[in-house]
Amino acid sequence: MSVSTSTIADLGRRARGAAPALAVASTGQKNAALHAAADRLFADADRIIEGNQLDLVRGGAEGIPDNLLDRLRLDGSRLEAMASGLRQVADLPDPVGEVTDAWDRPNGLRISKVRVPLGVVAIIYEMRPNVTSDAFGLCLKSGNVAFLRGSSAALESNRAIAASIRTAVADNDLPADALVLVEDVSREAAVEFMRLRDSIDCLIPRGGPSLIRSILENATVPYVIDGDGNCHVYVDAAADLDMAVSILHNAKTHRPSVCNAAESLVVHAGVADRFLPMALAALDGVEFVGDGHSRRISPAIGPADDDDYATEFLDLKISVRVVTNLAEAIEHVNHAGSGHSEAIVTGDEAAAERFCTEVDAAAVLVNASTRFVDGEEFGFGAEIGISTQKLHARGPMGLAQLTTEKYVVRGDGQVRA
Amino acid sequence: MSVSTSTIADLGRRARGAAPALAVASTGQKNAALHAAADRLFADADRIIEGNQLDLVRGGAEGIPDNLLDRLRLDGSRLEAMASGLRQVADLPDPVGEVTDAWDRPNGLRISKVRVPLGVVAIIYEMRPNVTSDAFGLCLKSGNVAFLRGSSAALESNRAIAASIRTAVADNDLPADALVLVEDVSREAAVEFMRLRDSIDCLIPRGGPSLIRSILENATVPYVIDGDGNCHVYVDAAADLDMAVSILHNAKTHRPSVCNAAESLVVHAGVADRFLPMALAALDGVEFVGDGHSRRISPAIGPADDDDYATEFLDLKISVRVVTNLAEAIEHVNHAGSGHSEAIVTGDEAAAERFCTEVDAAAVLVNASTRFVDGEEFGFGAEIGISTQKLHARGPMGLAQLTTEKYVVRGDGQVRA
Repeated sequence: MSVSTSTIADLGRRARGAAPALAVASTGQKNAALHAAADRLFADADRIIEGNQLDLVRGGAEGIPDNLLDRLRLDGSRLEAMASGLRQVADLPDPVGEVTDAWDRPNGLRISKVRVPLGVVAIIYEMRPNVTSDAFGLCLKSGNVAFLRGSSAALESNRAIAASIRTAVADNDLPADALVLVEDVSREAAVEFMRLRDSIDCLIPRGGPSLIRSILENATVPYVIDGDGNCHVYVDAAADLDMAVSILHNAKTHRPSVCNAAESLVVHAGVADRFLPMALAALDGVEFVGDGHSRRISPAIGPADDDDYATEFLDLKISVRVVTNLAEAIEHVNHAGSGHSEAIVTGDEAAAERFCTEVDAAAVLVNASTRFVDGEEFGFGAEIGISTQKLHARGPMGLAQLTTEKYVVRGDGQVRA
Repeated sequence: MSVSTSTIADLGRRARGAAPALAVASTGQKNAALHAAADRLFADADRIIEGNQLDLVRGGAEGIPDNLLDRLRLDGSRLEAMASGLRQVADLPDPVGEVTDAWDRPNGLRISKVRVPLGVVAIIYEMRPNVTSDAFGLCLKSGNVAFLRGSSAALESNRAIAASIRTAVADNDLPADALVLVEDVSREAAVEFMRLRDSIDCLIPRGGPSLIRSILENATVPYVIDGDGNCHVYVDAAADLDMAVSILHNAKTHRPSVCNAAESLVVHAGVADRFLPMALAALDGVEFVGDGHSRRISPAIGPADDDDYATEFLDLKISVRVVTNLAEAIEHVNHAGSGHSEAIVTGDEAAAERFCTEVDAAAVLVNASTRFVDGEEFGFGAEIGISTQKLHARGPMGLAQLTTEKYVVRGDGQVRA
């Protein structure tokens, strides 16, 4: 099952070749393969952890920092989580074949719109080897080939996981190439990968700004950007301040390293005097940097520059801006935000409505933490990422976002006049 | 209202600056502006036709062929058609604000998905100056700024049309920059245009293969490809052959130069002996090129090579392939087709079902002409193009395809556990 001697283009042809069989696979067949893959990961645990050890030893020798090595590490409980993720995806409804719209035309044509797989979904990702299994699961359930390119640091881990999954899939009469792993992890191969227009229907990059830049410059395949989350919490004049503190605390500190964590606090001047001291006390241990107005209220707030407002800290740090009205808040959020998730805390329904209408983001929230913008929390069951672009998918991407639609037109001999 | 001295980046900032006002404009306001623009095109007819004359004279001197000059030409009736197109768009339902989905979560969060404008829609197009008005109309109705870059050959015509429309929009209390026309028609400016990520939310190129190649290589803004239509008509063993002749005749000859015209005929071997002579007789004046099997049936069919099967002739020429079964037909269509519109003629429901499921295209048709794959014919009222890509929009693009969706999440203080 090794694919190491193949060129990137060969791998692309293999991925493309497997797509038709996956597109017509029944829900039962796909679910059986998902369960078999989960079992296989468990059965092959020793071999996978052995491969992972090789990566960890090499990574340690190459000086990869401990926090990143931790992301790379696999153990029994992480493998268990991967297996259980596959079983959960098996339990989700199959999006393929859903008729999303249907209508008749005066000339008797019956038109329907049917959900179909994209075909070959390519994913470029970093470090965490669990993505190999998670991405495969979502792609398989949505009838897509998973064409995966992980990081060089996780190569042996990914190879071992892919081998187990491919065996399980083939044992269930679906093509092993339902998962094709790129083992050439050079930068050149990455660029070649993102130009395989004949083989890739959609590329989803999961990585930092340098990967996104490389995609923008080099990719010719269609892609969905899973970008930054420079998320704001706006505390309106009509906010319940205790609720605002609780939401801000959750949005900032619950998991600071993720994209739906808050990075910036915007406060209405009418409540800033009362709110900022409450926030500083509740978010003990968080570094606040702010504008002149906020610093006059509290000397504990350091000075912020424009860069701070544009920065996704991903850490226990937050920028503060005091605004004199809702319009200024909206303007600031639209200017500084990254179009991910933006929250308003307010008891004023008109203010909430205006914020929701005028803020340009994948998700706007009223009186709730930005942390809820997530496939699981939205009820999608799982997610492949969170899109910050406006085309195709915006916000959390679940199984439906891994499909496209096809028009089916049925007639009885109609021709156009 | 002249914009000729601005840089491309300046124009982008102006387009971006107009987007918020358009996004919140009411349906009534947008419809009033559309009617005013229609009136204005009529009132300014002399000035517009004068500008068009300049283009025609220059084009003639530069040796533009007559058939292209005809596309460029404006007269009273073409202006009338442009104006009436704007009025028709005013009559279409406003897609903005439509709630496309809504659900509650166990924690009390209410989530809805709301249709919102993309923001700034950029369009690069060739020759026909009516696109300036048509694209503006669809963009305005869907709450988007139209950021337009026409061809150098139509510069004076586009300038005159844009001036009229901008005046009419401004007279109706919406920003004149609802339409921003790029007057620098150099290739360098086109490349700069397709890299304005801060200003452009979606680029829709309407042009030939060289424009598409340039987009793939240079664009960093999100785009939707309106690509080739290498469309097939497959005549199955169970086809009503008279119906098949009528559909093939319509698909090939009704308007050979458009993307939903048929370019290739695939015939089941079981009916090829009877069908091909019928088709040749009915499609008198059409050049047939085909494989050995088809040529043994009729000497009137010339030899076809692989290139012929891959070619969008856009002319009275068609390629022919005889297949021994449905699977071979599907494989050929998927291999040679461009994913646009593919038709089967058959009385066999199972064959129709399999063709619809396994053919990978924006639209599949059963017993109907490929010519129906069109925004008007689908009932969208108008179209900005026909997408051959799988992301965002696939097939005819109407007003809904010029929007994106936003999640609105409403709570009463929920934080994530």
